[in-house]
Parts: sequence; C-alpha cells; structure tokens
Amino acid sequence: MLETILKHRTIRKYDKNKDVESEKLNKILEAAFRAPTTGNMQVYSIIVSKDIEMKNKLLPIHFNQQMIVEAPVILTFFADFNRFNKWCNLRNAKPGYNNYISFMTGAIDSLLAAQNACIAAEDLGLGTCYLGTTTYNADKLINLFNCPKDVVPITTLVIGYPLEIPDLTDRLPAEAIVHYETYKDYSEEDINRIYAEKEALPQTKELVIQNQLENLAQIFTNKRYTKKDNEFFSEKFMNIIKEQNF
Amino acid sequence: MLETILKHRTIRKYDKNKDVESEKLNKILEAAFRAPTTGNMQVYSIIVSKDIEMKNKLLPIHFNQQMIVEAPVILTFFADFNRFNKWCNLRNAKPGYNNYISFMTGAIDSLLAAQNACIAAEDLGLGTCYLGTTTYNADKLINLFNCPKDVVPITTLVIGYPLEIPDLTDRLPAEAIVHYETYKDYSEEDINRIYAEKEALPQTKELVIQNQLENLAQIFTNKRYTKKDNEFFSEKFMNIIKEQNF
Repeated sequence: MLETILKHRTIRKYDKNKDVESEKLNKILEAAFRAPTTGNMQVYSIIVSKDIEMKNKLLPIHFNQQMIVEAPVILTFFADFNRFNKWCNLRNAKPGYNNYISFMTGAIDSLLAAQNACIAAEDLGLGTCYLGTTTYNADKLINLFNCPKDVVPITTLVIGYPLEIPDLTDRLPAEAIVHYETYKDYSEEDINRIYAEKEALPQTKELVIQNQLENLAQIFTNKRYTKKDNEFFSEKFMNIIKEQNF
Repeated sequence: MLETILKHRTIRKYDKNKDVESEKLNKILEAAFRAPTTGNMQVYSIIVSKDIEMKNKLLPIHFNQQMIVEAPVILTFFADFNRFNKWCNLRNAKPGYNNYISFMTGAIDSLLAAQNACIAAEDLGLGTCYLGTTTYNADKLINLFNCPKDVVPITTLVIGYPLEIPDLTDRLPAEAIVHYETYKDYSEEDINRIYAEKEALPQTKELVIQNQLENLAQIFTNKRYTKKDNEFFSEKFMNIIKEQNF
C-alpha cells in the first residue's frame, strides 16, 4: 500500500484507446466513499465525465489541457450541502450551513475523498492528474454541470491508463515540511539549503534557460502563478462561494 | 491497499502506553510528502506534537477531546506560503500569494498530504482521527505553535495504537454521492430513499431518543453543527485567513 503512495507520479499522457473498466471505476468510487468525513455528513459530491461531448466542453474550462479528452474518466469533486440541506428541510430541521465554515467542511470532505480515489486508481494500475483549474473556472463548471446552490467545485481528478510513466518528481527535504512541537521559522541559510537540490536539478536549469529568467522562483512568480492571475481568480472564486450560498 | 482504505474507521480510544515507533512516524511523514501538490510548490507544513506539555495546551483548543493527550502523536497540517515567499524574496522573485486562491492552494496541498498520512498510518496498523476543531480554533493554534504570517492550520490528525476497533460507520448509497455527466438534483423521494438506511439504524434511533429530538437531521442542526456556532466560526476563520495575509 505504502508502495502505491510512495511511487505516485502525475500522469499527463493517457492511452486514448483504453477505457477504465467499470469494475475499476466503481472500486475507485467506493474508495472515495470510505474517506473520513466531518460528522459522517458526507457533504461532497462527485460528477463522473466520460461522454466526449461533455469532455469537449470541459476542455477550455481546464485551459485546453489535452488529457481532458484523451483520458477516459474525469472526476470532479464538489463541496455539497445541497443534499444535506434538502434532507434537513424535509425533516423539520433548520439547516444553518450557508456560511464559510460549512464551505470549508465540504471542501475538506471532497479533498479527502479525492485523495482516496487517487490512491485507489493508482493501486489499480491507473494514472491520475489533479487539475487546479477547477477553482479558477468554478463558475463555468457550475454552469456546465447544472449544479444547484450550495454546491462548489473544489478539484478534478483525471484517470486513465498511462502512456508513459515519468520519473518521480523531486520533493523538498523533510526538514522543509516538518516542524517538531513549534514552528521553526526559516533563516536565509535554511532556505538556501532546503532549495539547493531542487535548484541544482538539470531540468530546473533547463527550464530557467527556456524561460529566459534568472532562476526557478521567478518562473513561479513571473510565469506560472502570477500576482495578477492569483488576484483575479481569488476575487472570482470568493464571489462564487458567496453566490452558491456559503 | 484498497483493503486499508475500505476498512477505515475513526479511532477515538488509544493505547496510552504504546508510542508510535519513530520508524513508522517517519514513514507516515514520507507518505505525506509524496502527495500530489500544486505545481510541486509543496505549500504546506506539518507540526508534530509528542510533548505532553504541548498536548495539554492543545487539549482545550480541541474541545477537551481526551485522545489529544492519550494518543502519542498529533499531526497538525497547515497551508503554508511562508517558506515559499521567503524563497522567492531571496531570489529576486516577487511573490504574489497574499490572496484567497493561494490560501485554497495551500489548503488543498495540506489536505492531500494529510490523507496520505492517514492511509499510511492505517496501513502500518495504527489508528487515526481527524479533528475539525482545527479551523474553529485556528487562532489559538497559530499562537501556541508560534506560526508566522502566511501559515494557517487546516486539519489535525491524531495517531496511535487503537484500544478498540469500532464497527465500520454507515455511508450513504453511491447514488447519493455520484452523478453522471451532469448534476442530478434530488427529489423528495430521492432524499427519503437515500437517507432511509441511515435513519433506520438502531444507533440512530438511540441517538434520537437520547437527544430528545424528532430525528437525526435535528441532531445535526440543533446540537452538533448549529447555525449560531457555524456563523461564529465562519467569521472567526475568515478573519484569521485575512490576518495571516491571504
């Protein structure tokens, strides 16, 4: 099991001709259902996209990443209080979940379920990829999927048979992530040491040259995750959360 | 592997006399590191609490749940842009991550890592429990752990050897959670069917009698997750996110 977790790779190239067997898909979904969930409320939903017309509509929403149409299965995970609220209303119980902490509860539920699905898929020999574009274009996903109020998309998992297995990606050393008892803030020396290996990788050096920038950090700030984009998507996503009643 | 996921239970009673071996703890942390992370930024941190004095201080923050002091290991997961911002600033790269979407990115990273840690722990024969109180008292956790700006606690995982293995908890049927291609909203009949099994459980009936309420839904709305509490914690957590620079 640990093996499956430790050999995780993000797969971006899928075998277009090999569907995910429905038995496997059902096992992946079953794994998602068993994830821990706040108060056993299960305040999340999953939408399965297999239809090519739907996937063609998903494609621009996810910034035209081709795996959307190449992979056989796309799972979108939602924070969902719609079902729970309907149940409460039918039971003479007054739901009080139109607020931010309930949105967070639904987001947490949906992410733990998503990671269970991810690990289950990999354990069954499939490849996966998370799509961060889900929060960027949450409004378009709500429209496309015809979601009611109290439902907000949180993440998307692409699933299919991998065409190629890339190398494991690098990770920062444990000391970068783990603190014991209290938060140990990072000195300049710490940061240099922690990022040294990542910065020295041949693929990092190549990326820096390709992007004509000084270093890897600038690729993040100037190209991949810019202040301007982040501010735009922050305001947009905040508005969606409110519009969806949270 | 799937076995580990499918037999997940929340453990609330731990063997006080049995520590988590450091080899196992390190494997759990290693599993967390391998979780998918947005753009491989790893914008999360983990604080390990083992010290009894720290756990005594954590106890009231987590609503005096005794497992805090009975379980040997408490892992708190944080959305963390502090390290990444420091790195950017030292590399002449201007970080643009003081915004809501970056908070969400950090929250997603931290939750996927937490679920990897949860599954790894269970696979190693340990029991786990998530604590939703983490977001409720995020301000107190920030103070206790001495967290800098750009760091927000998202969830907590209690880990130790179980004293008892409870039965699997019930889950709603698959049709409650999964939609195909588009969101299929729930009719009154759907809701009644979906919740029928849960409502008919002997432990549900017992709970309803104990609480002197009409039904399970009212236990959620009137006792466990009330509108008043949710609104209080929503405002509080929103303020913390902003105070921490997001």
